[in-house]
Amino acid sequence: MKYEAEILGDPRFESPLALSERDDDCIANFVDEDDKPLVNPSWSVWKKYRDEGREPHCFELAGPRKMLYFDPAGSRAAIVTCGGLCPGLNDVIRSLVMTLHYRYRVTEIFGIRYGYRGMTLRHGGTAMPLSPEVVENITDRGGSFLGSSRGMYNIVEMVDFLQRRNINMLFPIGGDGTIRGAIEIGAEARRRNMDIAIIGIPKTIDNDIAFIDRSFGFSSAVAKAKEVIDAAHAEARGAPNGIGLVKLMGRYSGYIAARAALASGEANFVLVPELPFELEGEYGFLQHLEKRLNQRKHALIVVAEGAGQHLMRDRSEELGTDPSGNQRLADIGKFLQERIDSYLKDTGMEFTIKYFDPSYLIRATTASADDSIFCFELSENAVHAAFAGRTKIIVGTWHGQFVHIPMELAISRRKSLNPNGPEWLAVVENTGQPLMISPGSAGNV
Amino acid sequence: MKYEAEILGDPRFESPLALSERDDDCIANFVDEDDKPLVNPSWSVWKKYRDEGREPHCFELAGPRKMLYFDPAGSRAAIVTCGGLCPGLNDVIRSLVMTLHYRYRVTEIFGIRYGYRGMTLRHGGTAMPLSPEVVENITDRGGSFLGSSRGMYNIVEMVDFLQRRNINMLFPIGGDGTIRGAIEIGAEARRRNMDIAIIGIPKTIDNDIAFIDRSFGFSSAVAKAKEVIDAAHAEARGAPNGIGLVKLMGRYSGYIAARAALASGEANFVLVPELPFELEGEYGFLQHLEKRLNQRKHALIVVAEGAGQHLMRDRSEELGTDPSGNQRLADIGKFLQERIDSYLKDTGMEFTIKYFDPSYLIRATTASADDSIFCFELSENAVHAAFAGRTKIIVGTWHGQFVHIPMELAISRRKSLNPNGPEWLAVVENTGQPLMISPGSAGNV
Amino acid sequence: MKYEAEILGDPRFESPLALSERDDDCIANFVDEDDKPLVNPSWSVWKKYRDEGREPHCFELAGPRKMLYFDPAGSRAAIVTCGGLCPGLNDVIRSLVMTLHYRYRVTEIFGIRYGYRGMTLRHGGTAMPLSPEVVENITDRGGSFLGSSRGMYNIVEMVDFLQRRNINMLFPIGGDGTIRGAIEIGAEARRRNMDIAIIGIPKTIDNDIAFIDRSFGFSSAVAKAKEVIDAAHAEARGAPNGIGLVKLMGRYSGYIAARAALASGEANFVLVPELPFELEGEYGFLQHLEKRLNQRKHALIVVAEGAGQHLMRDRSEELGTDPSGNQRLADIGKFLQERIDSYLKDTGMEFTIKYFDPSYLIRATTASADDSIFCFELSENAVHAAFAGRTKIIVGTWHGQFVHIPMELAISRRKSLNPNGPEWLAVVENTGQPLMISPGSAGNV
Amino acid sequence: MKYEAEILGDPRFESPLALSERDDDCIANFVDEDDKPLVNPSWSVWKKYRDEGREPHCFELAGPRKMLYFDPAGSRAAIVTCGGLCPGLNDVIRSLVMTLHYRYRVTEIFGIRYGYRGMTLRHGGTAMPLSPEVVENITDRGGSFLGSSRGMYNIVEMVDFLQRRNINMLFPIGGDGTIRGAIEIGAEARRRNMDIAIIGIPKTIDNDIAFIDRSFGFSSAVAKAKEVIDAAHAEARGAPNGIGLVKLMGRYSGYIAARAALASGEANFVLVPELPFELEGEYGFLQHLEKRLNQRKHALIVVAEGAGQHLMRDRSEELGTDPSGNQRLADIGKFLQERIDSYLKDTGMEFTIKYFDPSYLIRATTASADDSIFCFELSENAVHAAFAGRTKIIVGTWHGQFVHIPMELAISRRKSLNPNGPEWLAVVENTGQPLMISPGSAGNV
Repeated sequence: MKYEAEILGDPRFESPLALSERDDDCIANFVDEDDKPLVNPSWSVWKKYRDEGREPHCFELAGPRKMLYFDPAGSRAAIVTCGGLCPGLNDVIRSLVMTLHYRYRVTEIFGIRYGYRGMTLRHGGTAMPLSPEVVENITDRGGSFLGSSRGMYNIVEMVDFLQRRNINMLFPIGGDGTIRGAIEIGAEARRRNMDIAIIGIPKTIDNDIAFIDRSFGFSSAVAKAKEVIDAAHAEARGAPNGIGLVKLMGRYSGYIAARAALASGEANFVLVPELPFELEGEYGFLQHLEKRLNQRKHALIVVAEGAGQHLMRDRSEELGTDPSGNQRLADIGKFLQERIDSYLKDTGMEFTIKYFDPSYLIRATTASADDSIFCFELSENAVHAAFAGRTKIIVGTWHGQFVHIPMELAISRRKSLNPNGPEWLAVVENTGQPLMISPGSAGNV
Repeated sequence: MKYEAEILGDPRFESPLALSERDDDCIANFVDEDDKPLVNPSWSVWKKYRDEGREPHCFELAGPRKMLYFDPAGSRAAIVTCGGLCPGLNDVIRSLVMTLHYRYRVTEIFGIRYGYRGMTLRHGGTAMPLSPEVVENITDRGGSFLGSSRGMYNIVEMVDFLQRRNINMLFPIGGDGTIRGAIEIGAEARRRNMDIAIIGIPKTIDNDIAFIDRSFGFSSAVAKAKEVIDAAHAEARGAPNGIGLVKLMGRYSGYIAARAALASGEANFVLVPELPFELEGEYGFLQHLEKRLNQRKHALIVVAEGAGQHLMRDRSEELGTDPSGNQRLADIGKFLQERIDSYLKDTGMEFTIKYFDPSYLIRATTASADDSIFCFELSENAVHAAFAGRTKIIVGTWHGQFVHIPMELAISRRKSLNPNGPEWLAVVENTGQPLMISPGSAGNV
Repeated sequence: MKYEAEILGDPRFESPLALSERDDDCIANFVDEDDKPLVNPSWSVWKKYRDEGREPHCFELAGPRKMLYFDPAGSRAAIVTCGGLCPGLNDVIRSLVMTLHYRYRVTEIFGIRYGYRGMTLRHGGTAMPLSPEVVENITDRGGSFLGSSRGMYNIVEMVDFLQRRNINMLFPIGGDGTIRGAIEIGAEARRRNMDIAIIGIPKTIDNDIAFIDRSFGFSSAVAKAKEVIDAAHAEARGAPNGIGLVKLMGRYSGYIAARAALASGEANFVLVPELPFELEGEYGFLQHLEKRLNQRKHALIVVAEGAGQHLMRDRSEELGTDPSGNQRLADIGKFLQERIDSYLKDTGMEFTIKYFDPSYLIRATTASADDSIFCFELSENAVHAAFAGRTKIIVGTWHGQFVHIPMELAISRRKSLNPNGPEWLAVVENTGQPLMISPGSAGNV
Repeated sequence: MKYEAEILGDPRFESPLALSERDDDCIANFVDEDDKPLVNPSWSVWKKYRDEGREPHCFELAGPRKMLYFDPAGSRAAIVTCGGLCPGLNDVIRSLVMTLHYRYRVTEIFGIRYGYRGMTLRHGGTAMPLSPEVVENITDRGGSFLGSSRGMYNIVEMVDFLQRRNINMLFPIGGDGTIRGAIEIGAEARRRNMDIAIIGIPKTIDNDIAFIDRSFGFSSAVAKAKEVIDAAHAEARGAPNGIGLVKLMGRYSGYIAARAALASGEANFVLVPELPFELEGEYGFLQHLEKRLNQRKHALIVVAEGAGQHLMRDRSEELGTDPSGNQRLADIGKFLQERIDSYLKDTGMEFTIKYFDPSYLIRATTASADDSIFCFELSENAVHAAFAGRTKIIVGTWHGQFVHIPMELAISRRKSLNPNGPEWLAVVENTGQPLMISPGSAGNV
């Protein structure tokens, strides 16, 4: 797997940006290509590579280059948002337009409506002209100003769309499906010898894309999810043996559940896809819940939608797959509600369960201040990358620095909570929740 | 039906409050008993009563009296919160305690845990001592610091509880069921010749209690509901022919749906229990929705949980009644989602429905600034009323003034949106929604 | 002083609104002209008028009339925002445009830039065409989309501006100065026999306009001011003998200070223009503050900008008047800070004062949900009033009902906190603050 | 300068935490001491060290150790908050208490009132017992539950205080002054052979402590500062040639100004201490401002309090130093307001300046969700460090990992915006602001 960015060709034009290469002039600098961040900045890895005489893996630093591959004067850019909504989409759109327009003086900027779908004739694909005036206030609202949609469309039609309009830089904003699509678009464009940079801005509200520290919108989603957990806590405390049960997004990675629970500081159980758990028996969740209620008279449970699927095999098999080919998930929230209800009724305890499924509410909010900043930084670096002739990369931060990550690498694995690492440890320390599997069964669940 | 407050007996003690009866001393005044607000402040009613030589109905003004029925020194107060959560419960609890403690120097204040249930021995009823220190910060969180529960309990046991503790003022905070309970408690207390004031603070997140302008927490609930509508709007705009469907509280009265839709300014259809609507046919909701989508490519629907029950008779009959004897409602949200889905699929239109059911999220939030103020004013007036020996009343505002409303009167009818009045007119003007019943069928639905 | 609205002439056109006059058809009704709210809905006043055989003062109910004075087809409307910013200005602009466009199908709607100034040629007055598309998202931001400015301009030029553009309805949004200007514009227009309705929407962040229950934006301002008070409370508690001192808007009326203090529930002293206070001596503020610090180790003071001017005569005389002719206020915040500092230093107490002057922050926020609703209702009623041929009125609520208030009446007095009434009583009960004037001196300060 | 943490002695006790050292058991792991993050994770540095045959600088990873230096059973912890308020202080206090109590079962936890001052007898120093019940809800409010104060106090008295109470772990929360104090306390404690771990949690709302990625509360402060900038933007747009001028915290480092401006996306000029600027002349700020107003009719300026001090030498010299010995800053906000006013008056332009100085408002807010999480993580790691016998370190993240940073190292330099780096570049790209110094003068200002 390659860690270096693919480059369309040798630089040919001088950058119009009034930056510098000196440190003593109070002017921000162009990127120094030697300044490459290590992929693994740990001493033990450092030593291993040194001892083996090998060069370590590095990412390419993002940022403005002194020499460009594309001439800003003739450049034509297109922006497309794909997949589900995520806080910050409008910040990314606005920031791309602002940077293209004000920094590189690009006058031809197009917005594609409703995702990749908008690049196909049969769906009436149109390119909406974008300018600073058009996008000025779009960040005041959640959602995507351009609209979005799921799924892939005919690659040939999509590349026709770009070719017909002489687009030389495409900025797809989306998750792993979108990135896969972008790779195919890139391959077809290369077959046609089109000179086009494809620079992705990774979007995943589940924070599950590999090789990036975090995804934009995640922080805003966590803040909104925390509000819901706080409401569930109020409900739990408000009734005798009250139970608050909150289902949050997270198909494969429980980051939102884990982080929102931490932010609230009130959750007693956090259930995520990465950590198996048993329901019944001495070690099972239900007994632990009963114990908690006996001790404290209320309990608060946060569950990621992808958690506990192993407990509902029969349900999920019935559901089949969605249009994008993903296995449909059985509803762990409703399942837990039923199981808790029947278990506690058997104990004779008086109790109340209040179930919260905020779903879209969390992804349709506006971006927090931090996310607005992050979206701007991602977008300016995406534009710099396109002009520098990079392609088939996404931009992101790695150990705090903005870098170029090859699309192939980014989709080669999924990021998830490491049960052995500090992020999950924090959840365990914050909630005090026990291991909910029988001793020795960890490997088998 | 009586409009005057019931009084326990003649005033016997001088108020400890340093207020005045003069207008020129910059000191706030005791209430002037002649200053009675008219129940119906309209010219046509004024004229009718004058012409008929009748005295108009008036409410008694709330506020501090110079002479008290109870001696603050020996008074013992109890506070109980009943029914579902509502923003501002903690503000009311805190304000009652602060006013009792600081204004009347009452040192014996008790909080009853988990509603009327907490006044019965079999449920381990206990009285939690309350003081300014205990309640100081409780308003920072939603819910009820004391806990709440639904349903009525044994009246004899409950009055035993009060009698055993020599409580001479009870402040029940709750809706119509709670008020009914308070009336029964009052009747039993009278049978025993107990000298106790029962002053209710009306709580209804649906804003459906008669003879009060608005209920506390309603404004906060509307603000939170608006956030959800905004998210639904973002989702609706984010997809081709996107439909946002939001179900909000409102069993019999559609105030939250109506007001939150107004606040958002983006809803296209508001469906409430007070206004019948048809689904099918030329005048039906579904055709109007299709038309809207054809014109604008997205639509936003807000529906109160009690709306359209006439369309789901079969479903609701199956559900029966809840422990409090209320008819369980069939789920209009899910029903509409299904019907829209099947109708639009038949038209061949590509569309997406995003369904929002925020439920408890809306009632478990903290109080807005306005509601905090309102809760304080309700509470101080409730305490003044108790010391003045009023009983079996609730406090509320009527045409902007704080008054005493007899409990019997308050539960004699339910407040709901008047289809002919300005509140519903505003919704029609804001959404532009058509009448969705066949001509001439209004009376029959 | 007249309480009835001035009418331009007899109604001539049928309303295009699909409303009804029946109560049984689920269709909202046109206004019934007999349904007039009493100006003073109190029993004692009712009786007085009855006994004296007089008709009581009534306001005209706002709302849509069946017969109109202006033909919607040929109508041309102009909107202007004047004076300081206020939360909700954009809601009013948007709602006026939406109602004019969608309800009455007015196609010629103009926005005047930067207040009355924009109606004068010498300031490059221009009329900006407004439509639903233009104003759709303006409510996401605070401020005025049209811009605003203070002061009056040449009446002849301003009426020329309206005449040249055939404007037949002008909606000025502003405070008492703006209303005075509107009266003059109306008088000049009448001299020219122009057929123009002038319908004001009263704007005053100080909530000091008479004969309206509250002004739009006031609730949002109070909520924001409460946040500042909360911060000041945190600072006060965070230091030994910490003092939080917050200066809020309120030249002549201390409503923001009073209500925001109530909302916070933490203020110990609220100083407003309506209530005189002494600094020095046994009854003075400084001794009370010292006592509070000795008892509780922190104190929180909220002061309206117009409070205590009698203590700073020398300072304010130096300042003179502003361009609109208002006496410039001496800075009570800085003055108190100095005086507290020097007084407490003399006592040898260790203390810290943290001073907050949020000023514009409070008026430049977006509207709360409640204010958004209120702005819509004001605006729809303003449009209905214009079409019904009313003029030189403002719209507002009185005892909870939307009414037409003659401009002359509205500016005939200023609304302020009544030291004897329930609003000030609530502050006294919430803060526990003592009277801070020597006995018997109330009349003299 | 050392990068390794100081250790009190060899580990002696087994950790009570139910963690693991295996990767396959779904149980979070104890820290592996070999897993050390590189201080400088860049390829060029990697290569340099390799070529020179040197070991690179590493930090010690934070986290729980299997073997402890202190016995949890007999441990007594003290917490103290020093200096100015900062969002998240209460989160840190709560998290420390929760981790000490629930994870290590420490029952003796003390809170020191009002900073180091509270450790001296003459200021009535007392130790307030802390437990989960006491701190449960303190995060709902800004400020410090324990109170804080500035300045250093007598070291001997402070160590007496700790010794008398047998404190073996002290958690000072504060900035560089506090850390300096902690180093002195540590030195005195060593002289007395006291066995005490001193673990700092770095607090700096200016984000100016070196060797940590960010400080807690910074993100919350930026979000609040952004709100103020948004209000200033509304004011600027609301008036002809309106100028919004916002002064934000930042004595030596302009991070808050820079990041809040980025978050708003509306600032035109950001002035920070790190970047010199001229006022007058062809390159000066005033001419650029005039140009901006001519083009766009409004302008928005964000200035850090420490910016432009070189322009006000005469003013700042008069001010002298504060009790902690810091040079008092001249007020750049007021200075700019005056200079802009006089410059623009000379041009004959009509304009309005609205000045915002939110000061304490920004630091007294509650923590954002992200900051709450971060505060928890800092606190749990601080407790782990103390039990592992580390001392005179602070905890923080470096390139995204929680590490131990020696106190001496942390105060050896100050973190500030690098004019050549990507953070400042983002500001320049976002605002479009020009260099405001004459060519070639960068080194001299």
